[in-house]
Amino acid sequence: MHFIINKETLNEALSHVSKAVSSKTVNPILAGIKFAVENEEIIITGSDSEITIQTILSANNEQIEKIKIIETGKIILPKYIVEITKKLPEEDIEFLIKDNFTVIIKSGASEFLLNGFDAEDYPNLPYINPEQFFSIESDLLKSMIRQTIFAVSTVENRQILNGVLWQLENDSLKFVATDSHRLAIRKATTSNNTNLSFSNVVVPSKSLNELSKILDGANREVQVTIEANQILFRIDDIILLSRLLEGTYPEISRIIPQTTKTQITLQTKELLAAIERASLIAKDSKNNIIKFMTLDGERIEISSHSTELGKVTENLFNCKINGDSIKISFNAKYAIDALRSIDSSEILIEFTGALSPFVVKPLDHDKTLHLIVPIRTI
Amino acid sequence: MHFIINKETLNEALSHVSKAVSSKTVNPILAGIKFAVENEEIIITGSDSEITIQTILSANNEQIEKIKIIETGKIILPKYIVEITKKLPEEDIEFLIKDNFTVIIKSGASEFLLNGFDAEDYPNLPYINPEQFFSIESDLLKSMIRQTIFAVSTVENRQILNGVLWQLENDSLKFVATDSHRLAIRKATTSNNTNLSFSNVVVPSKSLNELSKILDGANREVQVTIEANQILFRIDDIILLSRLLEGTYPEISRIIPQTTKTQITLQTKELLAAIERASLIAKDSKNNIIKFMTLDGERIEISSHSTELGKVTENLFNCKINGDSIKISFNAKYAIDALRSIDSSEILIEFTGALSPFVVKPLDHDKTLHLIVPIRTI
Repeated sequence: MHFIINKETLNEALSHVSKAVSSKTVNPILAGIKFAVENEEIIITGSDSEITIQTILSANNEQIEKIKIIETGKIILPKYIVEITKKLPEEDIEFLIKDNFTVIIKSGASEFLLNGFDAEDYPNLPYINPEQFFSIESDLLKSMIRQTIFAVSTVENRQILNGVLWQLENDSLKFVATDSHRLAIRKATTSNNTNLSFSNVVVPSKSLNELSKILDGANREVQVTIEANQILFRIDDIILLSRLLEGTYPEISRIIPQTTKTQITLQTKELLAAIERASLIAKDSKNNIIKFMTLDGERIEISSHSTELGKVTENLFNCKINGDSIKISFNAKYAIDALRSIDSSEILIEFTGALSPFVVKPLDHDKTLHLIVPIRTI
Repeated sequence: MHFIINKETLNEALSHVSKAVSSKTVNPILAGIKFAVENEEIIITGSDSEITIQTILSANNEQIEKIKIIETGKIILPKYIVEITKKLPEEDIEFLIKDNFTVIIKSGASEFLLNGFDAEDYPNLPYINPEQFFSIESDLLKSMIRQTIFAVSTVENRQILNGVLWQLENDSLKFVATDSHRLAIRKATTSNNTNLSFSNVVVPSKSLNELSKILDGANREVQVTIEANQILFRIDDIILLSRLLEGTYPEISRIIPQTTKTQITLQTKELLAAIERASLIAKDSKNNIIKFMTLDGERIEISSHSTELGKVTENLFNCKINGDSIKISFNAKYAIDALRSIDSSEILIEFTGALSPFVVKPLDHDKTLHLIVPIRTI
């Protein structure tokens, strides 16, 4: 293995790939990064066996700064190669395999000799048919992740809830996340020319967090392929492969109330700020409980009380209330997470009673829906 | 107690004062922030009994946005008042004491009722004569702290080394810090009209860290007063009071070598970058050991070796070497800390042998000096 590569190109590739490498692993192979140099391209791979991130740098791609392949070969290098290449003095970095899985890395008057591992020991990636994919814009996919991932369960007793449910039918993609106390739904339209469809694909939230970081920056096309228990994302020269969660995601259509008794329209930011302030007192209690009630059919009072800290009362006059009056208690955090994720300036809240889950949704479209289970208080 | 204050003014004052409040204290009085409202000013105080930070907001100061004092009084409020006032909706915030040490805080349609504590329980600050002071510019003081504090000892077995030694004689101020493996000295000229002089004032590094944060921003005058076991800094309307470390600081003049056998001039940034790279391998070892040697009297080689990781070799051609050749080992971190703190583009290193401490100093002035004890290797 012998090649010369531009420092910035290499560092960008390593910054993506290294995110899949766990520092907790005891397996020195998976704690490292695999370099595979072929005739026309350098493939750099990091994996923790659940998520794999790979960058394919083509020597013929004119958009990529200088890559010169002198000899093919492969090796696994320890993860701190990332720190080393960041600090090298010159723009050109030369990699050369010596014997016994050691690599010489040269840049200007700086020379490292690093101990690596046999690339033959690296786990094989599963084969995924790259013909069967649908496409989505990276900005849209990033929004969909951001607007659902906060509702994913973080407790381990029901693993299927530790991911986001993906459903695709024709051009319609739907994300669902719930921790059984609140639920978030986000729908969008995609390009799907291959008649791909699925209804029980659950992607671990950790994989979506890593994917989200890769999606930063300019808007690009993301190609998504699913096969057996794996999902593969291709964004330009980066590939992220993740295993899927096993099991059947709970049926959520029956949970969403079909009738409403109270409808309230509110300014998103004003409501969010009031709940955030009330939460400063509420967070002293275990469930972060705040009270929300209509007063005189024309204003909202939000309040919270703590024996130790004191109490808080917020009034919202800028609202439209239709239907029954309501007095309900809920976890402030659930409302804050949902409201922060909503991009619209006005929202509609639909209640069907103090003990029933209520719906929060943007006033101007029906692509997102949040459901919050109230807390019974005395 | 009853007053109205501009949100931004209050938040800035609280951001300073709250830094002195320890979240670890079990004393609810010291876990809080004291508000004392007098006829003309509002004094806000935070303290962990070692460091006290106070802001004095005068109702007559035209530079301070709107303060309206309606009734004098005082109270201790819990530290989360800082979070609350940050999130209040309007520019004006009204504070009003109710009975039983509770305070009503109002801003727009938001109202908090907070439980506080009796201000009489707050510890009294020591009396310090404010007439006896010397002055120094905040930017200069901040540099002096930055250029010495990294050398302060962090181990607790010799407490006197946990601070920076301050010495003042006429207009000359000198800072010294050492952890007995390396030493940093920084000198400067101050305005001292009161014939104040001292030679064994040791300020805890924690206090200097907090002071440094207050010194951020525009260059201002800092007035420094010392009395008994306390040091007081006054910066505009902010006061920081710190206890001093007890004991006698070790005599350091004898440690600094008076003769040299090798003098090397180097580019600061080039040397720093080479040592930082070498340190990536060296930090695998306990003492972060790197080797530094002259070669052919015209270049420097820096290297490090780790059985597990591999090795690194750095060459520096851009140097002037006078005197004996040298081959010496030292802790890379000590050199990195010293070199990062030096603002000059060129440095002079003076060696008196492989087993003697060596001196690193800027080439263009003699206001700073660093001493590093080498490591004996086989």
